[in-house]
Amino acid sequence: MNRRAFNLNLLSGVAAIGLPRISLQPSLRVNGDRIVEHLTALSQFGKNPQGGVSRTAFSEADRLGREYAQNLMRAASLEVTIDAAGNIIARRQGTSSSLKPLLMGSHIDSVPEGGNFDGDVGTISAIEVAQTLAENNHKTRHPLEVIIFADEEGGTIGSHAIGGEIGAKQLGLVSNSGKTIRDGIKFIGGDPDKLTSVRRRRGDIAAYLELHIEQGGILDTEKIKIGVVEGIVGITQWEVKIEGFANHAGTTPMNQRRDAMLAAARFIDAVNRIVTTVPGRQVGTVGKLQAWPGAYNVIPGKVVVGLELRDLDAAKIQMLFQKIRDESSQIAKSTGTTIEFTETNSIVPAPTDERLRKLIDETAKSLGLSTKRLPSGAGHDAQEIARIGPVGMIFIPSVGGISHSPKEYSHPEDIANGANVLLHTLLKLDSMGL
Amino acid sequence: MNRRAFNLNLLSGVAAIGLPRISLQPSLRVNGDRIVEHLTALSQFGKNPQGGVSRTAFSEADRLGREYAQNLMRAASLEVTIDAAGNIIARRQGTSSSLKPLLMGSHIDSVPEGGNFDGDVGTISAIEVAQTLAENNHKTRHPLEVIIFADEEGGTIGSHAIGGEIGAKQLGLVSNSGKTIRDGIKFIGGDPDKLTSVRRRRGDIAAYLELHIEQGGILDTEKIKIGVVEGIVGITQWEVKIEGFANHAGTTPMNQRRDAMLAAARFIDAVNRIVTTVPGRQVGTVGKLQAWPGAYNVIPGKVVVGLELRDLDAAKIQMLFQKIRDESSQIAKSTGTTIEFTETNSIVPAPTDERLRKLIDETAKSLGLSTKRLPSGAGHDAQEIARIGPVGMIFIPSVGGISHSPKEYSHPEDIANGANVLLHTLLKLDSMGL
Repeated sequence: MNRRAFNLNLLSGVAAIGLPRISLQPSLRVNGDRIVEHLTALSQFGKNPQGGVSRTAFSEADRLGREYAQNLMRAASLEVTIDAAGNIIARRQGTSSSLKPLLMGSHIDSVPEGGNFDGDVGTISAIEVAQTLAENNHKTRHPLEVIIFADEEGGTIGSHAIGGEIGAKQLGLVSNSGKTIRDGIKFIGGDPDKLTSVRRRRGDIAAYLELHIEQGGILDTEKIKIGVVEGIVGITQWEVKIEGFANHAGTTPMNQRRDAMLAAARFIDAVNRIVTTVPGRQVGTVGKLQAWPGAYNVIPGKVVVGLELRDLDAAKIQMLFQKIRDESSQIAKSTGTTIEFTETNSIVPAPTDERLRKLIDETAKSLGLSTKRLPSGAGHDAQEIARIGPVGMIFIPSVGGISHSPKEYSHPEDIANGANVLLHTLLKLDSMGL
Repeated sequence: MNRRAFNLNLLSGVAAIGLPRISLQPSLRVNGDRIVEHLTALSQFGKNPQGGVSRTAFSEADRLGREYAQNLMRAASLEVTIDAAGNIIARRQGTSSSLKPLLMGSHIDSVPEGGNFDGDVGTISAIEVAQTLAENNHKTRHPLEVIIFADEEGGTIGSHAIGGEIGAKQLGLVSNSGKTIRDGIKFIGGDPDKLTSVRRRRGDIAAYLELHIEQGGILDTEKIKIGVVEGIVGITQWEVKIEGFANHAGTTPMNQRRDAMLAAARFIDAVNRIVTTVPGRQVGTVGKLQAWPGAYNVIPGKVVVGLELRDLDAAKIQMLFQKIRDESSQIAKSTGTTIEFTETNSIVPAPTDERLRKLIDETAKSLGLSTKRLPSGAGHDAQEIARIGPVGMIFIPSVGGISHSPKEYSHPEDIANGANVLLHTLLKLDSMGL
């Protein structure tokens, strides 16, 4: 759809400057071609020779990508500032000075050797929504903010500074760019010594909406166009230490072994069985394993594995862990080993706002798009912003469920659909409130 | 038993110089206290502060230990030479010039952080047998050789030079001492350019006897005093490459995963099940595992494990491998992975001589010692010497089956028993032949 079409749409609409019921522009649409054009232009910053992008936060590629995005924001008649955490905040005034702002956003930093859709789709689409409103002279009641959060992939740093607090320890961590987070924030124009100025309180915002690729294969497999995100799952990680007795692999009969590797194998299989037999959409992963001494001819005396469980419901994570721990006792007994768990990381689930879920669902359906409610298994800036106000998330399909990879891909039509759901959810929110 | 006791034994025996039936000295015994004294003295060379010994081949500790052992050999009236492979060969003439030599021996090099019994017991006992014969003025018909083989732990290098051929590639390998095997052989007085002078042919020896600790827990568990070794097991090792698809551990539903770690876990469990359900004493081990990328939050796309199978029967190893491969196909199918096997190492089984097994068994029983036939799961110099003549091996119990560890231990009484079985098996062999 081109710009002329938008203008025609505007003329056929019923909105007029000053009228509050500006949601009655159901034929308003974003420019899908322009989104693709902007995504393609953005993909040049940090492009890898072998495909995909390495635009890690605080790298030169990140800096250049941010400059490009700021230009897009200005072209969309937004007023751009950088906050002390390095977040790019692009504002547009509302007609009602008493209302709190409506936020939209995402990020443009990538993992090393990542793809061109994670974060970028939500960012470019939010800017496109603002540009569509500007081109159609559409005033909103609420002030709008389009935010590009700093360093999402390195631990949702920018959004965490808004919703919580970044400690000195975290500022000292070395990011993928090679810079500490402190130096990285300076590099992109922030001021790590003034992070408290960035912090917002519950009630400071009207709502936050984020469009994102699913990064999983549910929508793609089930041929659903729009995912209504129920929340960002909680994550708990444990280091699991299995100790047996290292011994000669040739001289130790099978029935005299205390084989930590065998115990680890049965543990990994048990985790999979427990996680897949309990109803629900929880996931459980053993992604790392180290065995000592680690030779062909020695029965491992010690194995350490990493266990991770994710679900929208923290109680369910605990229930699954309890089952895993119970079964581990049996495995330890049958293999003559000990199995110890140390919790190393825990992120609480961040549910989205039920009113926003309904609004997104209705909006998508009114646009003729099929929907499905699903959790977000990945972390997002929305989970930080959920601490200060209601959040809603819109997912679009990822082909093959692939993400954090040069093979990451979403179809242009699906991106435009997502951006239109974002646009009309925003407009309904603006006109009706929650 | 002290030296006076030996002399009394001698007087009560029927042997006399020149008589061929010198095996008729059934009351002849080694000096068990002296063996312990020599083992204790040897344990000082390469002693670790935390216990055990690190007397790796070609190290300074190895050189000093070898000097000490050569002095013991000379004290036992043996004529000591170093061959081109660095083996210490200590000779004693026989009364019949036409007979081939009877060999006894073992090694004194250790693994890093090893114990004081593996190799040392057989070496010190063989020297003790020679000293016992000397002290009792006992002439044998056959010439005797007590051999301390060079670098057993690094791949039975010294004995391999006698039974086979050491290639240039092997000479270039870096040993645990930090020296190449070539430089190491020079360091201990050998000449790596003259290894062909060391080689012996089938028929060059009358027989070879080796006393060794079991390094496993069978004798200790079953309270058996003497193990009659049926042979040294064959070993085949495979690198097993499991490929799935690396993906986000949060966003990839359980039923859409191609988890190489889960496949590896089921593989390891299957190896254990197959190896333990087929009758026999075979062993199967997965001692090493590496997973990529190896993070809590990424489903592993690739896992490589090391599989090792050992048995006295090469055909059985192949049968087990076939079963494992068949089951791997099922695991690959159920997990959406591929599993590939590459054979990385294969050592053929080396059976001992049945006549020597019988002789050892009868000898032990005549000394009032219980016996059990069993395979040697570990490699030994005997497997190399089996290529040039009949070999027999005598095992004594290892407490708890522990070996290659500072905790390795055998009781003095068991060591003396083993040395007496070695002595009397040698005497019977000498008098009767095979």
